[in-house]
Amino acid sequence: MKKVACFGEVMMRLSTPGHQMFGQARQFNACYGGAEANVAISLATFGVPSSFITRVPANDLGECVWQELRRYGVGTQGVYTGGDRLGLYFLESGAGFRSSKVIYDRSHSSFAALAPGMIDWEAQLAGHDWFHWSGISPAVSQSAAEVCLEGVKMAKQLGLQISCDLNYRSKLWQYTDSPEEVMTELMALTDVVLANPDDAWHYFGIKAEGYDIDDPAYNEAVLRLLVQKFPNIKTAVTTLRRTINASHNSWAALMLQHDESLLSPVYDLNPIIDRVGGGDSFMAGLIYGLLQHPDDLQYALNFAVAASALKHSIEGDANLVKVADVAKLMEGSSVAARVSR
Amino acid sequence: MKKVACFGEVMMRLSTPGHQMFGQARQFNACYGGAEANVAISLATFGVPSSFITRVPANDLGECVWQELRRYGVGTQGVYTGGDRLGLYFLESGAGFRSSKVIYDRSHSSFAALAPGMIDWEAQLAGHDWFHWSGISPAVSQSAAEVCLEGVKMAKQLGLQISCDLNYRSKLWQYTDSPEEVMTELMALTDVVLANPDDAWHYFGIKAEGYDIDDPAYNEAVLRLLVQKFPNIKTAVTTLRRTINASHNSWAALMLQHDESLLSPVYDLNPIIDRVGGGDSFMAGLIYGLLQHPDDLQYALNFAVAASALKHSIEGDANLVKVADVAKLMEGSSVAARVSR
Amino acid sequence: MKKVACFGEVMMRLSTPGHQMFGQARQFNACYGGAEANVAISLATFGVPSSFITRVPANDLGECVWQELRRYGVGTQGVYTGGDRLGLYFLESGAGFRSSKVIYDRSHSSFAALAPGMIDWEAQLAGHDWFHWSGISPAVSQSAAEVCLEGVKMAKQLGLQISCDLNYRSKLWQYTDSPEEVMTELMALTDVVLANPDDAWHYFGIKAEGYDIDDPAYNEAVLRLLVQKFPNIKTAVTTLRRTINASHNSWAALMLQHDESLLSPVYDLNPIIDRVGGGDSFMAGLIYGLLQHPDDLQYALNFAVAASALKHSIEGDANLVKVADVAKLMEGSSVAARVSR
Amino acid sequence: MKKVACFGEVMMRLSTPGHQMFGQARQFNACYGGAEANVAISLATFGVPSSFITRVPANDLGECVWQELRRYGVGTQGVYTGGDRLGLYFLESGAGFRSSKVIYDRSHSSFAALAPGMIDWEAQLAGHDWFHWSGISPAVSQSAAEVCLEGVKMAKQLGLQISCDLNYRSKLWQYTDSPEEVMTELMALTDVVLANPDDAWHYFGIKAEGYDIDDPAYNEAVLRLLVQKFPNIKTAVTTLRRTINASHNSWAALMLQHDESLLSPVYDLNPIIDRVGGGDSFMAGLIYGLLQHPDDLQYALNFAVAASALKHSIEGDANLVKVADVAKLMEGSSVAARVSR
Amino acid sequence: MKKVACFGEVMMRLSTPGHQMFGQARQFNACYGGAEANVAISLATFGVPSSFITRVPANDLGECVWQELRRYGVGTQGVYTGGDRLGLYFLESGAGFRSSKVIYDRSHSSFAALAPGMIDWEAQLAGHDWFHWSGISPAVSQSAAEVCLEGVKMAKQLGLQISCDLNYRSKLWQYTDSPEEVMTELMALTDVVLANPDDAWHYFGIKAEGYDIDDPAYNEAVLRLLVQKFPNIKTAVTTLRRTINASHNSWAALMLQHDESLLSPVYDLNPIIDRVGGGDSFMAGLIYGLLQHPDDLQYALNFAVAASALKHSIEGDANLVKVADVAKLMEGSSVAARVSR
Amino acid sequence: MKKVACFGEVMMRLSTPGHQMFGQARQFNACYGGAEANVAISLATFGVPSSFITRVPANDLGECVWQELRRYGVGTQGVYTGGDRLGLYFLESGAGFRSSKVIYDRSHSSFAALAPGMIDWEAQLAGHDWFHWSGISPAVSQSAAEVCLEGVKMAKQLGLQISCDLNYRSKLWQYTDSPEEVMTELMALTDVVLANPDDAWHYFGIKAEGYDIDDPAYNEAVLRLLVQKFPNIKTAVTTLRRTINASHNSWAALMLQHDESLLSPVYDLNPIIDRVGGGDSFMAGLIYGLLQHPDDLQYALNFAVAASALKHSIEGDANLVKVADVAKLMEGSSVAARVSR
Repeated sequence: MKKVACFGEVMMRLSTPGHQMFGQARQFNACYGGAEANVAISLATFGVPSSFITRVPANDLGECVWQELRRYGVGTQGVYTGGDRLGLYFLESGAGFRSSKVIYDRSHSSFAALAPGMIDWEAQLAGHDWFHWSGISPAVSQSAAEVCLEGVKMAKQLGLQISCDLNYRSKLWQYTDSPEEVMTELMALTDVVLANPDDAWHYFGIKAEGYDIDDPAYNEAVLRLLVQKFPNIKTAVTTLRRTINASHNSWAALMLQHDESLLSPVYDLNPIIDRVGGGDSFMAGLIYGLLQHPDDLQYALNFAVAASALKHSIEGDANLVKVADVAKLMEGSSVAARVSR
Repeated sequence: MKKVACFGEVMMRLSTPGHQMFGQARQFNACYGGAEANVAISLATFGVPSSFITRVPANDLGECVWQELRRYGVGTQGVYTGGDRLGLYFLESGAGFRSSKVIYDRSHSSFAALAPGMIDWEAQLAGHDWFHWSGISPAVSQSAAEVCLEGVKMAKQLGLQISCDLNYRSKLWQYTDSPEEVMTELMALTDVVLANPDDAWHYFGIKAEGYDIDDPAYNEAVLRLLVQKFPNIKTAVTTLRRTINASHNSWAALMLQHDESLLSPVYDLNPIIDRVGGGDSFMAGLIYGLLQHPDDLQYALNFAVAASALKHSIEGDANLVKVADVAKLMEGSSVAARVSR
Repeated sequence: MKKVACFGEVMMRLSTPGHQMFGQARQFNACYGGAEANVAISLATFGVPSSFITRVPANDLGECVWQELRRYGVGTQGVYTGGDRLGLYFLESGAGFRSSKVIYDRSHSSFAALAPGMIDWEAQLAGHDWFHWSGISPAVSQSAAEVCLEGVKMAKQLGLQISCDLNYRSKLWQYTDSPEEVMTELMALTDVVLANPDDAWHYFGIKAEGYDIDDPAYNEAVLRLLVQKFPNIKTAVTTLRRTINASHNSWAALMLQHDESLLSPVYDLNPIIDRVGGGDSFMAGLIYGLLQHPDDLQYALNFAVAASALKHSIEGDANLVKVADVAKLMEGSSVAARVSR
Repeated sequence: MKKVACFGEVMMRLSTPGHQMFGQARQFNACYGGAEANVAISLATFGVPSSFITRVPANDLGECVWQELRRYGVGTQGVYTGGDRLGLYFLESGAGFRSSKVIYDRSHSSFAALAPGMIDWEAQLAGHDWFHWSGISPAVSQSAAEVCLEGVKMAKQLGLQISCDLNYRSKLWQYTDSPEEVMTELMALTDVVLANPDDAWHYFGIKAEGYDIDDPAYNEAVLRLLVQKFPNIKTAVTTLRRTINASHNSWAALMLQHDESLLSPVYDLNPIIDRVGGGDSFMAGLIYGLLQHPDDLQYALNFAVAASALKHSIEGDANLVKVADVAKLMEGSSVAARVSR
Repeated sequence: MKKVACFGEVMMRLSTPGHQMFGQARQFNACYGGAEANVAISLATFGVPSSFITRVPANDLGECVWQELRRYGVGTQGVYTGGDRLGLYFLESGAGFRSSKVIYDRSHSSFAALAPGMIDWEAQLAGHDWFHWSGISPAVSQSAAEVCLEGVKMAKQLGLQISCDLNYRSKLWQYTDSPEEVMTELMALTDVVLANPDDAWHYFGIKAEGYDIDDPAYNEAVLRLLVQKFPNIKTAVTTLRRTINASHNSWAALMLQHDESLLSPVYDLNPIIDRVGGGDSFMAGLIYGLLQHPDDLQYALNFAVAASALKHSIEGDANLVKVADVAKLMEGSSVAARVSR
Repeated sequence: MKKVACFGEVMMRLSTPGHQMFGQARQFNACYGGAEANVAISLATFGVPSSFITRVPANDLGECVWQELRRYGVGTQGVYTGGDRLGLYFLESGAGFRSSKVIYDRSHSSFAALAPGMIDWEAQLAGHDWFHWSGISPAVSQSAAEVCLEGVKMAKQLGLQISCDLNYRSKLWQYTDSPEEVMTELMALTDVVLANPDDAWHYFGIKAEGYDIDDPAYNEAVLRLLVQKFPNIKTAVTTLRRTINASHNSWAALMLQHDESLLSPVYDLNPIIDRVGGGDSFMAGLIYGLLQHPDDLQYALNFAVAASALKHSIEGDANLVKVADVAKLMEGSSVAARVSR
């Protein structure tokens, strides 16, 4: 089976239990995750061999990251040890009209302190067929951006498919005024991209006419402009999330490939147990779909949407459902939701 | 007041807290229940004297069953002690598009090891007016099926009304290829039956035209065929559950008696806290209704549906609402749902 | 900034975790609140200096009240110590068609045992601009009613604005057959009143034609009759709650001022995490709005409705959101409900 | 088997989890107990048929009392319904040098409001051989004291053995200045008494020479004076608790009968999980011992001490060990403490 | 580094939280363990490559076993899938004079249903230097005993060192009256054995003079008799546990090799957090010591005792401390117990 | 009453529940504390008006610090807002021979980024009589050290008493090789110092003859050398902790003033619930004692030891007992440890 390598930061996530606000919490639920690790774990759970490349501190919290990746069967040969601290983020879990809140506390992390030359990219990518990165890694520090570029270049050189989730986060990108420059170099080597209008705007100033992020047509127009700018992109995808409230969204996706656009079914997500990692689970589903069903793009897209629809019912960063669970949902949601006994 | 005896297995239920998946759970919530015990507990909570006939091991877990039944005021004279183990089941509580999952671990239980002659049926049923069994008991082992038949025959002999919830479970019935044979003998002595199209099909190969389990008309047609096959049945009922997702169902019921069919109001169940035991709570409501309002079948049916609508808001196997709670909901759901203070 | 003083009882609230019924609970979540304290805490969280006047016992539970008020920055100079016990209430948190239940256990509390002369009203109200009381205080005991009247009179004498939430509770008012008499004297001095048709009926026998509490027009008619009876009322408001089930309500409000009536937007509250304190959070939002935007009544009304819509997503008695959170929701709910990161 | 009836109040106990202080607790563990109910539950768990006579309010909390007693198999025919509230007590669980704290909140309870004539004592005591009361019941209110006296008189008349745990509590006895008078009348009819020097002093002004409550000889001297005052007492017992700290006590007992004094073995209790109910579990063990081994007083005493030593390892008010567990400890503590597998 | 393979069953352990009794528990803590898996996990945590050979069912609970082993870095190539159920055990955690209780529920497990030929022993043991089994595997079923013998024979053939923890459990061994026969054949191939007087007596009828299991000399005498019977044993070891109560033991060990006996230091274990797995952690420490310090038996023995002393402070079956933690304790307990900051 | 100002960092503390190891924790208990804030909170709880000077980020976690200080009545006028993050520390709670572990994550915190001129020391210290700082503040960053010196100088100028807890932490002091230089300047202005031999050695290279940190004489000798070096010190104190294991210590203290040395009683701490903050609670007790009993140094010392003995029974950083609790323990530990009811 094809093998996938992912590169990114793993953080400790500290979330308030139930729907407590930060000021109410006397306990935090702890788990470990990050945009790209969520992809690696979901792929491993789908049965796709995946490896993870990151850096963690040499303390008990860093070790928890090793344990968590190993537990799900993700390869940990690429987990480097060093640096000062594990990045953290705090999550206040919203409900109804009260949105979830994230407080990042990831500056000066072991990952952010990665420097060129630290990772033996050739060894780490050898034997893999796909390399996945996201816009978060180049955002955390200049040196991490450089390391990310090392990886993307080596992946290209070794002939791997390269995918990226643009994942623009306004609170990151502190070290530069021109994310565009950094991202352009990386994007020019990337084959599959997950991007939404916000990403396209903030990174590349791309905007289509008649701004309406809830409109599939507008999303498609943005993707077309993006592909125009980066003709190396083979597959461009966007998720279509409409937010009724923090507990209730609708969810779908749109794919653009060779001028052809495909639309997925729409899922009505209600209630949402945890929407963090929704996009990551979509990305994992997409990679799975493209690897396993390369000739059926509609299937690949639908698989990705169904997989991530299921993720919204799972607490924690990572999607833990299997291929059979996704397939069951694709057959029909009411069948899927009956008690399995 | 009329007295009801129920026969069946009581298991320890180990459910994941919140909506955790099995692989995430570090704790399990424990409670005790089973299809028929749920009926007995609900009846006792409605104020109907009920007794329970079962078998549990002579250890601390078996004792928990005694305590739980006693706590709700269910008669425990019929709880026999012996055998190797208490049956268990594990429950992963779903949400949204992720369905709940049940892993049964009930083989070789004290109940499954029941053998003819172990229960003094005459003593246990004396002084009762109604006997309730379900399709689960004959499914767990051949000897349990034989014991169930002993009970049904004695109940008939003593002049009790006999009710059954067909409750087909594909994971049980391991010991025989012909459940039909076993069930036919039992059904021929039964007066009131709760059956859905799936049960009718799997047990008796009964199927009506134009298969659509969400269609009341189809359900009625199946009930008519069932009653045709078992003319001894006085009252046949089916619940009508439409599954939007694991957290959202619609809920109603249909009754067939003397060729006349009655339809209940429809309840929109959202959110569902726990749907396990939904059918059992309906059965308890039905028995209550038929005993207390024998001349008003529509009331009996509506009571059963309202009672079980409330059950979906309660964690655990058993329905713990009282007659007054059900009556309040029957008056109008918006009144019922206001804070009582 | 203008300062607000509130008078009322603070109770320990003991609520069942999750959606457990009283009989299932082996633990109770504890917090501290009461109709008027909820107003004071919400105002302090909005940045409005607020003080609280109450009485608690001289034990560790009474001290918890001090700590909780101080924690949110509410002034505690008016917290008197004495009496026998802290009032309590037990809350069973409903879901779906099962309503929440409240068991009051507040008789003989330190607050109920307040007697005229105990509070130095002049000192406590000095330097304040607004005084808030609710119909609960005169309901708990005759002497508390007399103390409340002392406060209202002193507030009037010192030139404070006076507001009241009528808050009729049928389980209180044990000491008299004529709440009307008590309330009439208090109302005659009050400027701003929050009242719904139930309050108006039970206190003053006021009923408009064509009873329909879900109809804004009916609510407006009642408010008009109320203002007719108490021409001193400058602003009369009612909340419009429609109860689909215990987890799903719609929520809006209507204001009557100088013959002009204003209607707020409607919020669809689903799911409701905790509706206790919903009206109190509205009252706090209203006072904030009237103080900060005295010339824009529509804004004040809309602020109050949005603030209390958010409260329904927060466990506990008090609304803990800030002005910026409310403003974000007023801009549009789908924007508000996105993850803030 | 001989049957025992107990009379007293059942309260809801709200204890802080872990060793939290009141001001730290955001949750309270809830259970139900009281000095005399703890005796009844322990006896039922020993296999001695026991009945309980009390009064609880007609609400869901009162029902929890019913459920809890039934669960352990205690007869509930004597549980009357009525009155305003269930008595409560709050418990802060100490550790090391920090002692546990109790805040009683039991005034005006349904039990305290019991009045003469409410209990049909003849019916309740019929068929029983032993009646147990404690000094707490006459302490809560004058009318409860009168009801207690009714019970003791009827028990005497019907020929039951009567036992009492003196249980002096300084925070109770609010209604009278002379507990002595009340207690003297009750004690004059009592056969078996559990009393320590504090009880003897506070109730009857009894003090021996050379005050030292840790000295068995001093305790024996007090018991001799007590029996001198009440020659009707056949068996007088005291427990000998030495407090090293809140987590570490030593524990023994001394019995005086017909001038003969017996001393039990000493148990070193470390750690103590919960010492509330320690004396009650001793009383239950003593009644069991006297009923089952009437001719071996040393065995009865040792049984009571061993039973209550085990109670200190159990969270909650009531002792839940069985006769076999006690017997195992009596054989030797190191054997008892091995893992049973 | 030398590699160790272990063979045995992994069960789900369901333990009561805090020190609750079975009848009090509404939740169970879940973890996964078993005598031999505990050894493999501890070795992996010490940095010794270890593999595990077992069989689990093809369901979500079986998968939890995979995840748990992988998490700690134990090789899972030898985990076979099949059979009906995962073995369970329930644990009531004792305290003070109340001992812990175990209820096994492991009959008919996937492991117990292992049959000869199922495991490719040659492939599983290839590349390993040490094979560990315990007396529990041959005790669960005849076929498991046969599979165990297959493994031991293959290990011998491939030249591995073989160790065994005798681990006699009276509740197992249901299938035969002569465990001795089964065990003799296995023991004749074993090099290192952990045995206590109870094991020696129940398996082989070995008893020395002057029975006193707390006396090191008696233990040594038993070991000498055991080695006399099985001259192939190179190293025989016993742990010396003295039980003051369930929370307080003393702990040491004695080794016999070539007629020479060595005694370890004694550790005073107080409080004990969890003594389950104490012997397993000793065994892991011993294997580590013998592998890493083959020429310093005293060090190996002391390491094993210190490692297992630490285990008693850890909740769960497995010892999770590292070599450095053990070394710190060996340097002196008071140093070890200071806060590390 | 005299007023005390304290200066230092407040961190979020994330501790594993029960005695879980970091790798086992799925939840962390959260509280807020720091060496100097613990002093301020304890003083406020003793009734001594205290103020706190610190800096926290402008986010919800920074606000939790405000709330926590306010809750205990500590003055928060000196809490400045700014900087990037709240400092954190992770705590693994040990037991028996397994020591507790701390992982600091406080670099780059809002407090560490304090710079000279940020704090208006004159305003903050006005009206106070005592200023307390600890060796932790100058250790976190050079600029924090400079700010600390500003404070100490202003305190001296305004005539406040100045106290310091040396609190050497090897993991801090990253910015300089000569802590001695920094500390010497600060110490030269300090009146009361809490120092142990480790502090004296690491900061100032002070060592007495015959190194034995458990020996009071050795500790006294070190204090004499320290006072020799800093003749401005009026009162030098050291705590005497002997560590039997992580759950069991002995605890006392020694004071040196004007050549006279005083020794406190010794407390046997068993079990220890939480030893973090033990020294801080001692410091608070000492300040209280010196302020309230300036003429009875032995009382002041004994009060400090008793107060901190109680702290060891409380989970969390801060001591929450009152003066009356301490006084009760000083009267005799067995009296103190009885249930207060």
